[in-house]
Amino acid sequence: MDIKLYITQVGQRARKASRAMAKANTGVKNQALALIAAAIRRDAALLRAANEQDLAAARANGLTDAMLDRLTLSDQAIATMIEGLEQIIALPDPIGEISNMKYRPTGIQVGQMRVPLGVIGIIYEARPNVTVDAAGLCIKSGNATILRGGSEAIHCNQALAKLVQEGLLGAGLPADAVQVIETTDRAAVGELITLPQYVDVIVPRGGKGLIERLMRESKVPMIKHLDGICHVYIDDKADQKKALDIAFNAKCHRYGTCNTMETLLVARNIAPLLLPELAKLYAAKDVELRADGEARGILSGYPHLSAASEEDWRTEYLAPILAIRVVADVDAAIEHINHYSSQHTDAIVTEDYSRAMRFLREVDSASVMVNASTRFADGFEYGLGAEIGISNDKLHARGPVGLDGLTSLKYVVLGHGEVRV
Amino acid sequence: MDIKLYITQVGQRARKASRAMAKANTGVKNQALALIAAAIRRDAALLRAANEQDLAAARANGLTDAMLDRLTLSDQAIATMIEGLEQIIALPDPIGEISNMKYRPTGIQVGQMRVPLGVIGIIYEARPNVTVDAAGLCIKSGNATILRGGSEAIHCNQALAKLVQEGLLGAGLPADAVQVIETTDRAAVGELITLPQYVDVIVPRGGKGLIERLMRESKVPMIKHLDGICHVYIDDKADQKKALDIAFNAKCHRYGTCNTMETLLVARNIAPLLLPELAKLYAAKDVELRADGEARGILSGYPHLSAASEEDWRTEYLAPILAIRVVADVDAAIEHINHYSSQHTDAIVTEDYSRAMRFLREVDSASVMVNASTRFADGFEYGLGAEIGISNDKLHARGPVGLDGLTSLKYVVLGHGEVRV
Repeated sequence: MDIKLYITQVGQRARKASRAMAKANTGVKNQALALIAAAIRRDAALLRAANEQDLAAARANGLTDAMLDRLTLSDQAIATMIEGLEQIIALPDPIGEISNMKYRPTGIQVGQMRVPLGVIGIIYEARPNVTVDAAGLCIKSGNATILRGGSEAIHCNQALAKLVQEGLLGAGLPADAVQVIETTDRAAVGELITLPQYVDVIVPRGGKGLIERLMRESKVPMIKHLDGICHVYIDDKADQKKALDIAFNAKCHRYGTCNTMETLLVARNIAPLLLPELAKLYAAKDVELRADGEARGILSGYPHLSAASEEDWRTEYLAPILAIRVVADVDAAIEHINHYSSQHTDAIVTEDYSRAMRFLREVDSASVMVNASTRFADGFEYGLGAEIGISNDKLHARGPVGLDGLTSLKYVVLGHGEVRV
Repeated sequence: MDIKLYITQVGQRARKASRAMAKANTGVKNQALALIAAAIRRDAALLRAANEQDLAAARANGLTDAMLDRLTLSDQAIATMIEGLEQIIALPDPIGEISNMKYRPTGIQVGQMRVPLGVIGIIYEARPNVTVDAAGLCIKSGNATILRGGSEAIHCNQALAKLVQEGLLGAGLPADAVQVIETTDRAAVGELITLPQYVDVIVPRGGKGLIERLMRESKVPMIKHLDGICHVYIDDKADQKKALDIAFNAKCHRYGTCNTMETLLVARNIAPLLLPELAKLYAAKDVELRADGEARGILSGYPHLSAASEEDWRTEYLAPILAIRVVADVDAAIEHINHYSSQHTDAIVTEDYSRAMRFLREVDSASVMVNASTRFADGFEYGLGAEIGISNDKLHARGPVGLDGLTSLKYVVLGHGEVRV
């Protein structure tokens, strides 16, 4: 197989299909989504059989239990997929919405119309549910999509692709609007990310290694985040119960997510009171603490305590490990965060109005919170209805990215024969 | 001079200054702008003297009259600069604006806050007025900026930079918020566009050659457009007077601008009636016509008529030359435009409601117009108050880019101690 030729043809077909998708009205797009959901329900047994082929190969290749778990398409996972499609059907269609239509002194009326980006390339690991989630979001937002899932899920992804294309055709939309790349050759990714003429944006979903490689090599803009080094700062005007709840939840609710707290900052005045209480909660979960000298003084006797190095302030542990630093005040906290944060999500716990407002304004991250757990940084929790990914970049979408992040605004001008004078 | 070291230091200073600019309130930013305007008024004679140095060198180097004209800082140009700053003062401050603040079922309140991008690099040709326009827009939007103007304007730009920095310092803002690169070495541009850690976005303003070079080499995202191959489609349901007015204005109002029409499409049913009338208008301006066979049949006898080649449909003439094609209907027009347009600005002239709506929805360009001249695609005409550039890209800003295009939205979450369950 000539990979370059194959991916170029996939891109050309996607570009062509994107024109039809951009024109498709809301009813037609929702009909396609409903037909896909019905086909998945009908063929659940076939999907599980395809998934079993993938799982057998994965076990033979010695994949870890965690990877096998993500690869598994259980009855529950299939039901969640169908539910996800139903949620996308219920979301308002962003396409064609016109905003800010205003008359100008020349007589023309100027506003903006929300339109699809065109062709979205999605590169993800061996999680078959992403195939359907991503296809659903791209269909609803009037885009064509090219899906490249982890090679371990190839049988399952191809089975899902057939059902997605059946749904598209049933609603009168082009099957090429959702294409799953048929080869597991890694060169296909390299081709996909260097075709800006056919692919408008790449959304990578995966580990840091994948994203770093794509950042080096991609010629297509990306909606992505590299890592989540999230902070909670407990101010000396914090409500102590809120502080304990949030600092515990932000670390211990789930260890492996990008919005989990990795560094805790505590104001000097409250540290002696608060840290020992917090240590009891963390000790019950066997959380390892890496602390600066001042915090170690307060925490001495904690079972898993060591000195934080410079490297710890820059580390996303994704594990029951927490870096702790005592800081003078909110200024020092903001300075630490703007220096070390990955600009994903950072929170302050305080009852002080002025400090809360300053933190909101001055911390330069995609999500900034007052008195809430960083774990809320998520498209569903924010009310976007769905999430294609999270962006730490400042251009285009920032933070959790829903349907709107897959769209763009073009200017529309309504005139009556006006000319420039 | 070690260019790499110098530009890195400029970048570091800009990043540091950007933190202070992001915090600066509206009154302080407006005060800086007013002080800059006053300093320019006070030192007009000094500025003209610095400009005279540049002009003398430019004449010695044999620059064209057009380039000398753009380089000249006349009394009128100085007055326009000051007026531009006053207009920017009058614009609402976009920074800190919070929108869509909504309660979620969990109890948290989620919205978005408009924040500066950080550090904007602006690369432009020998037009000293851009120095002050760009500095003004970046100050108002809370960004730091690094300005790299054409080397022919170096004396004038450095004189302007002094006045800008005087104004910043007078308002208590860091002088490093606006830095003019002090060397004319072209390597400085290469360094500036490969420092994503210090520069958040590059805005290139210049010819196609400059933009193409930057597109190949830049590691920093850009707000840019490469060219403007703009179309007017005259439908057979067009009002004839509007069609003649718009087709004449879009081509002949100014030849060298990116929103000038380069290709005219005319519906077959109206071409025999309309093209001869239009030809009279173009003949009076000595416009050269390059037409397809059908249009040539109608236009035979026109003094400057030749056959359009495939290349003509892809050419931005920036000159009194127009490509003309007869098309069957609005479908053929949309297909031609989506194939050949540079996605800058395209217009339809029609009285037919359904065709107008289809053109608006289906033409995939930054500005899409009904019954108005393409020449309106401009930040001032759209009511943005000012324009830093025009973008043909779909991510982030699209079309004319004003203050909002120099900003980003971050999520803000207001809680009361909420945690994820």
